[in-house]
Amino acid sequence: MKDRILIVGAGLVGSLWAVLLAKRGYQVEVFELRNDPRKAGFKGGRSINLAMSDRGWKAMERAGIKDTIRQQAIPMRGRKMHDTAGQLTFQPYGDQDQAIYSVSRGGLNIELIDIADQYDNLKFHFGYKCLGVVAEEAKAHFEHRDTGEHLTVNADRIFGTDGAFSAVRRSLMKALPRFNYSQSFLDYGYKELHIPPTTDGKHALDPNALHIWPRGQFMMIALPNVDGSFTGTLFLAYEGQTPAFDQLNTDEEIMAFFQTYFADAIPLIPNLLEEFRENPTSSLITIRCSPWRYEDKVLIMGDASHAIVPFYGQGMNSGFEDCTLLDELIDAHDGNWAEIIEAFNHSRIKDANAIADLALRNFIEMRDKVADPKFLLRKEIAAHFNKIYPEFLPLYSQVTFSHIPYSEALEEGHAQDALFEEILVLDGIEHNWKDNPEVDRIFRKWMQGRPVLATS
Amino acid sequence: MKDRILIVGAGLVGSLWAVLLAKRGYQVEVFELRNDPRKAGFKGGRSINLAMSDRGWKAMERAGIKDTIRQQAIPMRGRKMHDTAGQLTFQPYGDQDQAIYSVSRGGLNIELIDIADQYDNLKFHFGYKCLGVVAEEAKAHFEHRDTGEHLTVNADRIFGTDGAFSAVRRSLMKALPRFNYSQSFLDYGYKELHIPPTTDGKHALDPNALHIWPRGQFMMIALPNVDGSFTGTLFLAYEGQTPAFDQLNTDEEIMAFFQTYFADAIPLIPNLLEEFRENPTSSLITIRCSPWRYEDKVLIMGDASHAIVPFYGQGMNSGFEDCTLLDELIDAHDGNWAEIIEAFNHSRIKDANAIADLALRNFIEMRDKVADPKFLLRKEIAAHFNKIYPEFLPLYSQVTFSHIPYSEALEEGHAQDALFEEILVLDGIEHNWKDNPEVDRIFRKWMQGRPVLATS
Repeated sequence: MKDRILIVGAGLVGSLWAVLLAKRGYQVEVFELRNDPRKAGFKGGRSINLAMSDRGWKAMERAGIKDTIRQQAIPMRGRKMHDTAGQLTFQPYGDQDQAIYSVSRGGLNIELIDIADQYDNLKFHFGYKCLGVVAEEAKAHFEHRDTGEHLTVNADRIFGTDGAFSAVRRSLMKALPRFNYSQSFLDYGYKELHIPPTTDGKHALDPNALHIWPRGQFMMIALPNVDGSFTGTLFLAYEGQTPAFDQLNTDEEIMAFFQTYFADAIPLIPNLLEEFRENPTSSLITIRCSPWRYEDKVLIMGDASHAIVPFYGQGMNSGFEDCTLLDELIDAHDGNWAEIIEAFNHSRIKDANAIADLALRNFIEMRDKVADPKFLLRKEIAAHFNKIYPEFLPLYSQVTFSHIPYSEALEEGHAQDALFEEILVLDGIEHNWKDNPEVDRIFRKWMQGRPVLATS
Repeated sequence: MKDRILIVGAGLVGSLWAVLLAKRGYQVEVFELRNDPRKAGFKGGRSINLAMSDRGWKAMERAGIKDTIRQQAIPMRGRKMHDTAGQLTFQPYGDQDQAIYSVSRGGLNIELIDIADQYDNLKFHFGYKCLGVVAEEAKAHFEHRDTGEHLTVNADRIFGTDGAFSAVRRSLMKALPRFNYSQSFLDYGYKELHIPPTTDGKHALDPNALHIWPRGQFMMIALPNVDGSFTGTLFLAYEGQTPAFDQLNTDEEIMAFFQTYFADAIPLIPNLLEEFRENPTSSLITIRCSPWRYEDKVLIMGDASHAIVPFYGQGMNSGFEDCTLLDELIDAHDGNWAEIIEAFNHSRIKDANAIADLALRNFIEMRDKVADPKFLLRKEIAAHFNKIYPEFLPLYSQVTFSHIPYSEALEEGHAQDALFEEILVLDGIEHNWKDNPEVDRIFRKWMQGRPVLATS
């Protein structure tokens, strides 16, 4: 008889993990706070689209829905920067055949739930709020949000995939004697703004790019949706700096702000003032903790154990990679859960911390550096190195287009920083970097000291 | 009519803060989980003595009990290191007239409660567990630990001085929209071991020193008590390293460990095996959070907002300094609490983070570096600089014998690290540092770049 598995949370990670476990024949029960999104529809307004990259696709493949999702995904081959004069520049993410993909969170979640629901050994229970788990007994308490019914569920193992404000994590925090935990908010909030399709139903901007309006201390971005619209997101300090959300109160202040910084976007957002006033300002949290498990009985995954800021587009991807890695560990340890969970807990936390760091660092890159000539020059030289020496992979590609552990990518990123610090100070480098023997010498010497990275 | 003030927690910081507020005529109610220590006695076994340094004494002076406490305090003028062969070396903390003072936590707490209790406008309530506060209404819920009685207390302002596992902080965490919080445990635990007086009632070791048995990855220390005993504390990894607590299970293993590393301490600890087995292994936590206040209604202080590891002897001192600074702010802002609390929250958090960092860093210094000749050489040269240029204050002195904000001391510490990195690599520095023109040149140049620190 296979283990009874309880999954708390049927978001993206929870429903994917449910599919992978059901496939293997485990008895899976999934409890979710929200109502069934297939009946209730998805609440929009926040995080309506996400960027799927290689780590995510690998997991989709494992779940058998790569092709289905691919059909609803829009490839974004690079960043398109909008300067204050409305001038556009394009910066590819990688090779011409490489892209990240704008996907709908709601659509993807429904797809995963649908697939999971086909298994007889898997059952969803919607509308149940988790009140906490009793870790040492692998049981969880729930309350139905409408009926108030209380329910206790016993299992052999519990997986907490209940997001950044995880109830399962809260229980672990009490049950474990030395639980390291940090929650850290940026002083920035974000607000979503809608860019509808043009009157003839087309995208109002190039749909095959992630649009960025980098403005130094703040920025706006826009990702394409399949219906021809874009979801724009303004990232701005809550207060204290100028400009900041708390400085933008009257219609005049809001319009003046957009006219100064995002003039070319104003005609694209017809309900700008209304949306600015009525859409919520959401916060940006980073969560780190350790350990992630209670013996072999409880494990937290995805945002529940490592919520990150969205600036590297790796929140969903890292959660999906949790599922891939665990699924691989089931094979490697022949279903011995004590070993599987211990191995995952041992190796994955440093990767989660690394992508948390990378995501925070990328905020500065997106809002500021992408408009910096030195940064663009570095990108160009890095792409050139990569063409000559394919084993040289720029940091962005390692994170986005490979399966190299995040912690190794971060380390590699630091090493690449050191390399370019040497190169970018060379005289006249802006013009003479091609076929420059000194650049070549520095690069070759640097490459000799680098480890060979596993790119599979 | 003066504000009604509620203080949650009558530990060291809570009872001192109660004294300072009562002195100013506020209506003060203090609720404490434990029973009245004047009747119940103090539970020993943990944290029985603390090291009072200048920041603490300043606060004692404000409370009017400096002389009383001074009589029960034992000056420790330096570190006395015990090597594995039992050889002793002494390292002064500062000038000959400078010392840190071993004081009894219990005795000091009783003294503070006694003083506070003399005010008619101050009332203690013992045995009440805080269940949480309603921050926006400045009210708190309590339950009596014996009778189970529930009580709600309304105030104008609440101060949470309820320690590292603060219930007030837990409520702030829920009430504030973006509360940054981290709790982080060392992989080390500590265990107290008792060194009784000799048969003729004397201290078994020099009482005017803090004794350290530095062993690289772990250490033991001992602080003197007025009754002729010492409290020894072993700091050791919980697990995974050798040696570690989880490797020491049988009597043979424990004795072999002590014989190898602490042979000279064995005869001093007559109940070694019994105490090792029966005394708890306690954990070492660092807590950082921000903000510390809810409007002008709730403020957390001391360990409740900044618990640190004990290795710089600044846990109590930093909590007492919170009281001093707030008391000074009451004068500076003429009793305007919105301003006082905001100013404190604005300036003090970085200092709390700095002393947290310094305390973590000092663990490595105590267990490892104090036995390192380069480190001792640096101490010697620093003391020499200080004699010639009194404005050069070694980091330890800044933290321990001054009132310089911790964050400035930490910054100065980094700068001093850079200075000594330059000096200690000079050829033959061990022998030729005195009257060495190159040392002098490096030092003078370095001094030119330093800010003048406020030492008062």
